Amino acid sequence: MPSTAYGQDEAAPAQTEEVTPGPEAAPPAEEAPAFATYDDFMASPEAAMFTVNNLWILLSAALVFIMHLGFCSVESGMCQKKNTVNILFKNVFIVCIGALGYMAWGFNAMYPGWEAGVSKDFFAMGSPLMNGFGGDEAVRVANVTSAYAGANYTIWADFIFQAMFAATAATIVSGAVAERVKLTSFMIYAAILVTFLYPITGSWKWGYGWLNTMGFMDFAGSTLVHAFGGFASLAAILVLGPRNGKFTKEGTKPILPHNLPLANIGVFMLFLGWFGFNGGSVLSANPESVSRVFVTTAMSGFSGGIAAIFASWILLKKPDLSMALNGILAGLVGITAGADVISPWASVLVGLISGALVVCSVLFFDKIRIDDPVGAVSVHGICGVFGTLAVAIFGTGKLMPQLVGTLSISAFAFITSFALFYIIKIVMGVRVSPQEEQEGLDIAEHGSPAYSDGH
Amino acid sequence: MPSTAYGQDEAAPAQTEEVTPGPEAAPPAEEAPAFATYDDFMASPEAAMFTVNNLWILLSAALVFIMHLGFCSVESGMCQKKNTVNILFKNVFIVCIGALGYMAWGFNAMYPGWEAGVSKDFFAMGSPLMNGFGGDEAVRVANVTSAYAGANYTIWADFIFQAMFAATAATIVSGAVAERVKLTSFMIYAAILVTFLYPITGSWKWGYGWLNTMGFMDFAGSTLVHAFGGFASLAAILVLGPRNGKFTKEGTKPILPHNLPLANIGVFMLFLGWFGFNGGSVLSANPESVSRVFVTTAMSGFSGGIAAIFASWILLKKPDLSMALNGILAGLVGITAGADVISPWASVLVGLISGALVVCSVLFFDKIRIDDPVGAVSVHGICGVFGTLAVAIFGTGKLMPQLVGTLSISAFAFITSFALFYIIKIVMGVRVSPQEEQEGLDIAEHGSPAYSDGH
Amino acid sequence: MPSTAYGQDEAAPAQTEEVTPGPEAAPPAEEAPAFATYDDFMASPEAAMFTVNNLWILLSAALVFIMHLGFCSVESGMCQKKNTVNILFKNVFIVCIGALGYMAWGFNAMYPGWEAGVSKDFFAMGSPLMNGFGGDEAVRVANVTSAYAGANYTIWADFIFQAMFAATAATIVSGAVAERVKLTSFMIYAAILVTFLYPITGSWKWGYGWLNTMGFMDFAGSTLVHAFGGFASLAAILVLGPRNGKFTKEGTKPILPHNLPLANIGVFMLFLGWFGFNGGSVLSANPESVSRVFVTTAMSGFSGGIAAIFASWILLKKPDLSMALNGILAGLVGITAGADVISPWASVLVGLISGALVVCSVLFFDKIRIDDPVGAVSVHGICGVFGTLAVAIFGTGKLMPQLVGTLSISAFAFITSFALFYIIKIVMGVRVSPQEEQEGLDIAEHGSPAYSDGH
Repeated sequence: MPSTAYGQDEAAPAQTEEVTPGPEAAPPAEEAPAFATYDDFMASPEAAMFTVNNLWILLSAALVFIMHLGFCSVESGMCQKKNTVNILFKNVFIVCIGALGYMAWGFNAMYPGWEAGVSKDFFAMGSPLMNGFGGDEAVRVANVTSAYAGANYTIWADFIFQAMFAATAATIVSGAVAERVKLTSFMIYAAILVTFLYPITGSWKWGYGWLNTMGFMDFAGSTLVHAFGGFASLAAILVLGPRNGKFTKEGTKPILPHNLPLANIGVFMLFLGWFGFNGGSVLSANPESVSRVFVTTAMSGFSGGIAAIFASWILLKKPDLSMALNGILAGLVGITAGADVISPWASVLVGLISGALVVCSVLFFDKIRIDDPVGAVSVHGICGVFGTLAVAIFGTGKLMPQLVGTLSISAFAFITSFALFYIIKIVMGVRVSPQEEQEGLDIAEHGSPAYSDGH
Repeated sequence: MPSTAYGQDEAAPAQTEEVTPGPEAAPPAEEAPAFATYDDFMASPEAAMFTVNNLWILLSAALVFIMHLGFCSVESGMCQKKNTVNILFKNVFIVCIGALGYMAWGFNAMYPGWEAGVSKDFFAMGSPLMNGFGGDEAVRVANVTSAYAGANYTIWADFIFQAMFAATAATIVSGAVAERVKLTSFMIYAAILVTFLYPITGSWKWGYGWLNTMGFMDFAGSTLVHAFGGFASLAAILVLGPRNGKFTKEGTKPILPHNLPLANIGVFMLFLGWFGFNGGSVLSANPESVSRVFVTTAMSGFSGGIAAIFASWILLKKPDLSMALNGILAGLVGITAGADVISPWASVLVGLISGALVVCSVLFFDKIRIDDPVGAVSVHGICGVFGTLAVAIFGTGKLMPQLVGTLSISAFAFITSFALFYIIKIVMGVRVSPQEEQEGLDIAEHGSPAYSDGH
Repeated sequence: MPSTAYGQDEAAPAQTEEVTPGPEAAPPAEEAPAFATYDDFMASPEAAMFTVNNLWILLSAALVFIMHLGFCSVESGMCQKKNTVNILFKNVFIVCIGALGYMAWGFNAMYPGWEAGVSKDFFAMGSPLMNGFGGDEAVRVANVTSAYAGANYTIWADFIFQAMFAATAATIVSGAVAERVKLTSFMIYAAILVTFLYPITGSWKWGYGWLNTMGFMDFAGSTLVHAFGGFASLAAILVLGPRNGKFTKEGTKPILPHNLPLANIGVFMLFLGWFGFNGGSVLSANPESVSRVFVTTAMSGFSGGIAAIFASWILLKKPDLSMALNGILAGLVGITAGADVISPWASVLVGLISGALVVCSVLFFDKIRIDDPVGAVSVHGICGVFGTLAVAIFGTGKLMPQLVGTLSISAFAFITSFALFYIIKIVMGVRVSPQEEQEGLDIAEHGSPAYSDGH
């Protein structure tokens, strides 16, 4: 499919068959554009469908944006009061720098087809996205009728949607290293991760690289976004070490979340945003495809919550809200790779398995003394891998490409994250002092508490 | 209208005349489908309108989803700190189990027309929703062009929208029984309520049952959702009894809300979601209908806030934020039955009356020693009944069907809720021990506080 | 453009050239309406495009609505715990009364074209918006095909979108006068501001008044909404005076925000809503225009955050979360006047400048002992003026009309706000007693704390 040049009028049906959250890059069609001006296009019968498709991509960008509030709130709510400002600051920084880095480099590195035809290489150079607006009518028409986009959305709608995605990977790491990471070190790490590393593996599939050629399927990023972030997190945790006092000779000490209503707001915001994350990855408002994706996404999230509630109740003897919330996220991560090809009832199974898996995984990592304050490795890493394999088990994927894809990208994320964070550790350190950790990063790094009782 | 078989091309005008938030179930049309394949349909001139209509139903589902965050936040914010985790856990469980139960039984029980033509019976059996995706072209075409949907949305878009509605009724009860109900008992009660009881009365109107035949009008559920939840709440409160210490010999003791910014977030989320709750109940993106519903819904909510502010200021001598917030919700509940037929200025009147009504109702229930921690009976029950009657007073409804409809459904909700909760009380108890109530359910039931100051 | 009568079929291209967030008021077209009934229109090929355009205006209204939760949360989170209920109450009141006042007077004052052709006068009388629904087919058709709207949305979609805008100006003042203003005085002030004063300057541009004739450009309200609110704030602060204890002989005492996660939620809600605030101001779903506005809006917001982070780090020696959040808002305010004509990379510049500007401005006002608890004058006033000038610097505006426009509206807001608040001060006082200020307004005015630890 990617190597087939198809005309604009065939684009919509093509989208129905196979949808991927990257532009349908294709060699430029030979024929002259059918419309002389943008206004001609907007007066044509195709304009209404294009307009609704484009609007849905933009709305999806807004929905994915609000996931960043979700990450802010769930990560800070799950951590200790004294580190709240620090977590919020990191996440606010990541979404800002992530979008800027993606505009300056990442987008063109991830989708090399924009610039020079389709790349199947391992690595494409990025560059600032310079496509313009208005003025020249040929540019305006190209923005809406060029073959690459299947005529479903403008290039800038695509950019803003993908930019909101990009910062997600680094935000996942933010939770894993919370409560002991040095701020400036993390800021440098996160900026490099989102700008340079994430687009490389992203291009392997969505930029029509070698994994796409192999038949690897990852609809909206169980592997490309979540497993990437999860295994980058695992590497960062190994370089960083656990929080002081978490693992003692007497055993593992639970560190309580400081604000569960805040974490709850975070999970609901993430769920809401996932309708855009997965639904927008249809890359059009195609009724059959988007309806299916809404149903599979939501039902897997709900099922994940139910499975985690009962799994944790059995294993921990208590109905645990944190586990219920992580179970919902696990179900959402698990369905993300196959939301377009898995049936509604199979999505319930994917959610149930993901929800049970995340509970076991969180307990396992605690057991082997890997300190992940918000369960990022379990939710995004483990369930991301499972979700990618689920496309073969419950959907139309083949097992081997799914295995190769999820393992190669997870390994790339782990290795590059480890190397990068280790270099930063040598150069400038990655961890605050024990005194600062004890005092809390809000006062130590920011000189400001998150909550104040006033005077 | 329901008994008329109409073709796809007549569907949109038909929706304009009479909109109901249930599928326009109708005996299958005789003629062969006009499109051989789904792609043929998507290439037709009808496709753009179908796509925007379907997208609006899906967006409405996402908006109604976020109402569950609203319920979580307003109910936990209005209650005591020590019961916060418990309320959040209950509401997370309800939305998860509610959607699963609705998929496994409720949807087909509420809309029997999907399966075997239109039922006008009192009660229809449910069954798992098995409609598929893709594959067979006849199924794909049927999903978008069958008469039942008036060709406005796919069956799965309808399902996910209705599923988000369904859990609402049980969530309303959650607030009413807060701070003293036994968790497992409530979980069983809520799962049965949402899966089996709510679809029965739902089918009386939206499944083309006897109330619909009678001419009962309830656009988006002042009665079917809100009065149902409100009177189910009243029954549960009567079985459960008031919180210890609320009503003493010395009089009624106010129990302060623990987090008003959280409750405020909850009310705004509910208001936002109501644009989908009412707006999506148009069942299309018809510009005239959806515009009207947005205006009447918002203006009634705003008016409800103003009326409650001044009513409570006069009666309580203080400008009361909780009452202002409940007044907004009251206005939203009040307009829900007639948002499609009431004029903008009449919607202001509906809101003003609802806002004043809820203040009086809350004070009345306190007076007669019915302990409803969040005012659920007043907001959803009393204003739900008023809103249903308002369709006759300010809109195009007739008084008698409105009276019969709201009383019969409220009575059904009250009686079945009472019976169910009473049976659970006998079998396993519905109330925590006085010690647990004193300690707070977060520690007693979940072993976890909502807020922690850390180490 | 405003004085050109154009037919319905030319409307969409016209919108592409020049978009303003007010109805494209124009003398009624001479020809008879092309459609005899609303259903005829809905069956026409134009209906799908009209439906998606109208839906986007309604969705934008919902997005702007949620900005009021943003204001509630950011203002209360940035202030002291003891004044939380008071801030929430004020903001809830403003959005309610603002929408009612806009329906009863403001909309027709701001858009006199609705009633009697285009006004170019300084001041137009308002009146209740009485346009109806349904019934008469001529009215129904006029609602969708009349020239004024460019056939992009119904009059009621326009009203609800503009009504959500209107309350914003007064909400900005709410933060500036927080923690010491007398509740009833502020309620009267805010109701007059939003109902009578805001529509006057609004009509100068969006109602096709004298500033529009002069060529003044303000796409979505850097001046009409934000600078208006910012300079109204400055006047109110001057009448009111600083909080007790803020400026002492020993110097300026920082008063800590009481809940930064709440403020963070507020800023993300404002950002989310801005997609509707700016995106909806396109007044259609035109793909090129809305895509551009999404990109410029988001990138300026992100850049504002980055600039404020580094500017405050340099000046204050600490990575400051409050400044990062205000930087994001500054970037959003800054791009609002030119989001439709500024290029993506220039929007990054606008954001960077706005973010640095807001940090300097906040420090400056502290220096000159003007006490603005949430930085409203800096964020909305200063960056609103800068953003208006940026249309000339980075976009297609001319400097002189931009200067005249932003100065005349800022001056009008300052002078009328000062006069109004001063009169209220003389008549009934505008400030609580020192004892009440010390105790906190929640207990003193409302008799209710925002947070309670329970019993």
